[in-house]
Amino acid sequence: MHSDVLTIGDRTFQSRLLLGTGKFASNDIMRQSIEASNTEVVTVALRRVDLDAPQDDMLNHINGDSILLLPNTAGARDADEAVRLARFARNAGCPSWVKLEVTPDPRYLLPDPLETYKAAKVLIADGFHVLPYINADPVLCKHLEELGCATVMPLGSPIGSNKGIKTRENLRIIIEQAQVPVVVDAGLGAPSHAAEAMEMGADAVLVNTAIAVARHPVAMARAFAKATEAGREAFLAGLGGSSDIANASSPLKGLMWE
Amino acid sequence: MHSDVLTIGDRTFQSRLLLGTGKFASNDIMRQSIEASNTEVVTVALRRVDLDAPQDDMLNHINGDSILLLPNTAGARDADEAVRLARFARNAGCPSWVKLEVTPDPRYLLPDPLETYKAAKVLIADGFHVLPYINADPVLCKHLEELGCATVMPLGSPIGSNKGIKTRENLRIIIEQAQVPVVVDAGLGAPSHAAEAMEMGADAVLVNTAIAVARHPVAMARAFAKATEAGREAFLAGLGGSSDIANASSPLKGLMWE
Amino acid sequence: MHSDVLTIGDRTFQSRLLLGTGKFASNDIMRQSIEASNTEVVTVALRRVDLDAPQDDMLNHINGDSILLLPNTAGARDADEAVRLARFARNAGCPSWVKLEVTPDPRYLLPDPLETYKAAKVLIADGFHVLPYINADPVLCKHLEELGCATVMPLGSPIGSNKGIKTRENLRIIIEQAQVPVVVDAGLGAPSHAAEAMEMGADAVLVNTAIAVARHPVAMARAFAKATEAGREAFLAGLGGSSDIANASSPLKGLMWE
Amino acid sequence: MHSDVLTIGDRTFQSRLLLGTGKFASNDIMRQSIEASNTEVVTVALRRVDLDAPQDDMLNHINGDSILLLPNTAGARDADEAVRLARFARNAGCPSWVKLEVTPDPRYLLPDPLETYKAAKVLIADGFHVLPYINADPVLCKHLEELGCATVMPLGSPIGSNKGIKTRENLRIIIEQAQVPVVVDAGLGAPSHAAEAMEMGADAVLVNTAIAVARHPVAMARAFAKATEAGREAFLAGLGGSSDIANASSPLKGLMWE
Repeated sequence: MHSDVLTIGDRTFQSRLLLGTGKFASNDIMRQSIEASNTEVVTVALRRVDLDAPQDDMLNHINGDSILLLPNTAGARDADEAVRLARFARNAGCPSWVKLEVTPDPRYLLPDPLETYKAAKVLIADGFHVLPYINADPVLCKHLEELGCATVMPLGSPIGSNKGIKTRENLRIIIEQAQVPVVVDAGLGAPSHAAEAMEMGADAVLVNTAIAVARHPVAMARAFAKATEAGREAFLAGLGGSSDIANASSPLKGLMWE
Repeated sequence: MHSDVLTIGDRTFQSRLLLGTGKFASNDIMRQSIEASNTEVVTVALRRVDLDAPQDDMLNHINGDSILLLPNTAGARDADEAVRLARFARNAGCPSWVKLEVTPDPRYLLPDPLETYKAAKVLIADGFHVLPYINADPVLCKHLEELGCATVMPLGSPIGSNKGIKTRENLRIIIEQAQVPVVVDAGLGAPSHAAEAMEMGADAVLVNTAIAVARHPVAMARAFAKATEAGREAFLAGLGGSSDIANASSPLKGLMWE
Repeated sequence: MHSDVLTIGDRTFQSRLLLGTGKFASNDIMRQSIEASNTEVVTVALRRVDLDAPQDDMLNHINGDSILLLPNTAGARDADEAVRLARFARNAGCPSWVKLEVTPDPRYLLPDPLETYKAAKVLIADGFHVLPYINADPVLCKHLEELGCATVMPLGSPIGSNKGIKTRENLRIIIEQAQVPVVVDAGLGAPSHAAEAMEMGADAVLVNTAIAVARHPVAMARAFAKATEAGREAFLAGLGGSSDIANASSPLKGLMWE
Repeated sequence: MHSDVLTIGDRTFQSRLLLGTGKFASNDIMRQSIEASNTEVVTVALRRVDLDAPQDDMLNHINGDSILLLPNTAGARDADEAVRLARFARNAGCPSWVKLEVTPDPRYLLPDPLETYKAAKVLIADGFHVLPYINADPVLCKHLEELGCATVMPLGSPIGSNKGIKTRENLRIIIEQAQVPVVVDAGLGAPSHAAEAMEMGADAVLVNTAIAVARHPVAMARAFAKATEAGREAFLAGLGGSSDIANASSPLKGLMWE
């Protein structure tokens, strides 16, 4: 299974766990959690990056050689804001990759399908690798894929809710139809959620809150890493279906003295 | 976390994944799966053991030095049959441990609370370590614990159904109240199910069908091992609760140019 | 469908909604709720009945001619207490029907399978019609049925939790196997829960908390009555199965101008 | 509660159950089902209406005086097709109401958020009352509402799947935020599903397949009518929340002889 790599755009990755960097108690805990997770893609809110004083910045705590820094547009309320943020970052030296988040409503931070599509179109034309955060909407996923997005990133449940995968029906269809990697993003609150997404055939998962706010973030990062691997391996090993009647683990041939 | 051991009776275990041995395509695949799973407890149906010709037996494929062979009474339809099976095995040289299964109905193989209790009473008086397979019934668990059972083994869903944990409400209560290890047994059909049981605070899980009938049993055994560890580590690392409103992964302080 | 009656013991009922009488804000609201629900079986905790001063009692608020008063043994912690309560009531003039509840643990009030079985045996021998409140345990249900119980009353979820049906897997099996009426009891917190139980093929449901503590108990009683009927009628009308692919409501023959 | 009416656009309705007309075995069964359902809004696929020969048409089987005939654009694969269908129908004498369905993928018939938005914009400018069928996407719902749509119609699960409400998380948010009626459309396969949608606070539900393909469609229509009413009444009567610990239905004051 050493050849099971994840390819996004022109890059390949061994790890299928992407990490967000919000909410960590300190940069040091963040750095240790990143290491424990074995992640190769770390997403960073552009608003939190001090592009003028990089030496003081959290970015210094992330090893940019082995890890892809994926700027995100968290906080953008419409396409214009998202596009401005992405360009601003590239001008300051960031790579031309962007996790596109457009969330008009601060209460639930759910993605805007229309504005996300609009921003993706502009940014792709502009040479960006675009990874859009979206609702688990199969038709929208096809549109974004046709536009040239590098992945689709449907949500499991609202950001930070820790509710796990509440969009199974649509997620199943998205995975069946997608020609680009499907990264389940948002709502994954426990390693079992990450494992389940991978077992369903998702290509990767993105986790942030569940690790950052755990009592022991570093241990939790390790747990998510193992669960993501477990889910992927189970998917490749071929899970059985479920059954309504019992299947005896041991053949029922009658007892020994019969 | 090196000191996180599972204690059952007078024995301690590093691994929290117990394995059943039914349904494997060959003894060789079974042996490899056992190795890949890192399990230290393997359960074997007494009816399938040829106690008279041990040299030909599947038991030879299991390393009895590092692994506890746990005979089970699969196929017993009432307390008498279960007690006879357990004693028969001990007379033939098996250890005085028994996974107690009493299942009158071959269609669903669900456990009998009354006959299981009766058999447990006799076998405990007889010096056995008894690990009873039961419904996720909190009051029955307390009775069995008070009787002296070494564990309780509530089911997640019917044997071989692969449906995962369908008994969450009662399982949560059982785990909260138990003074002996809680081993979730039956129905765990995917690594995510094992992880979830461990995240809930179960002490261990037992898996058989999902590994034995996977397309690649050995890889699936490895996946279950990782998921079980992930779930345990997440439990120890302190999972956060779920929330009905969004929690921005990145603090929403307004955009950069604001 | 006028001939679709529920038969328990030697009595027949048009309504399939049984009502509990705890927690109502007043006897008057209770009486109105009973009327609105169209119920024909009302269960009353023996401990709350003042058998010496019946004229002051809540029982006066229930029309005993059209409604079966079903005493329950709520609060009994073992078989002996339950048997004493039931006999005490009959001696005071109650009918020889009893809803058998044995709940050793006051925190979750979950039923005790061993003590319930023991009490049922004694009370049936004593001439009682016994309706036992139990976990959704298919094998226990068969034992109680064989003992002569008038119904089995598996729980949907813990009493008063309002969580609905969390025992679907086992409930499905119980309904498939039962030869006596299956009454889903406890945990039904909304009319949709009652409808679901009936759609699954349950013979009746018992509701108390969800009605008694609603903002408007009388309206809620009416809502449960309609939902119970709806679920029953749907069961008889033959529900379709679910499907993983879409089924166009309208045949897709191409558009009008094609 | 006689004043609890549903208002859509400039019309008011007593019934909150909308009916689709596809898949009925005959026009006669359809007509009887419509009557049994008490519906006041019936949706008809424009493609199935023979606008040139109305006397032979299924429309004759629907009482247009008491029932709003709501043409739908089922089969439209993009905005242009949907707009053409709607205009075509109005030119032929249909009212200027339209249930807007844009479904590019015939396998799952899931709605297209971008094309639906585009079509809604055109049709609203054109004077139509637009009721769009969409994914359970809260941000899209707000956009459509701001555009002037008469309702939003988020799906419970894919059309014809009978899976019920698999979009609870988003549906809850949509209902909380909507200023226009929320009609849960698609996937409702049993009366309990309709009741649940109403209990959550949806303003109405639309059902087709579950009634049309039932063994007894007329009885099933009646069952859905009752369940929809039950769910609405329960919503108005104030459902209690759920609880993790038991709430004794009967106060636990100790037994009678204590």
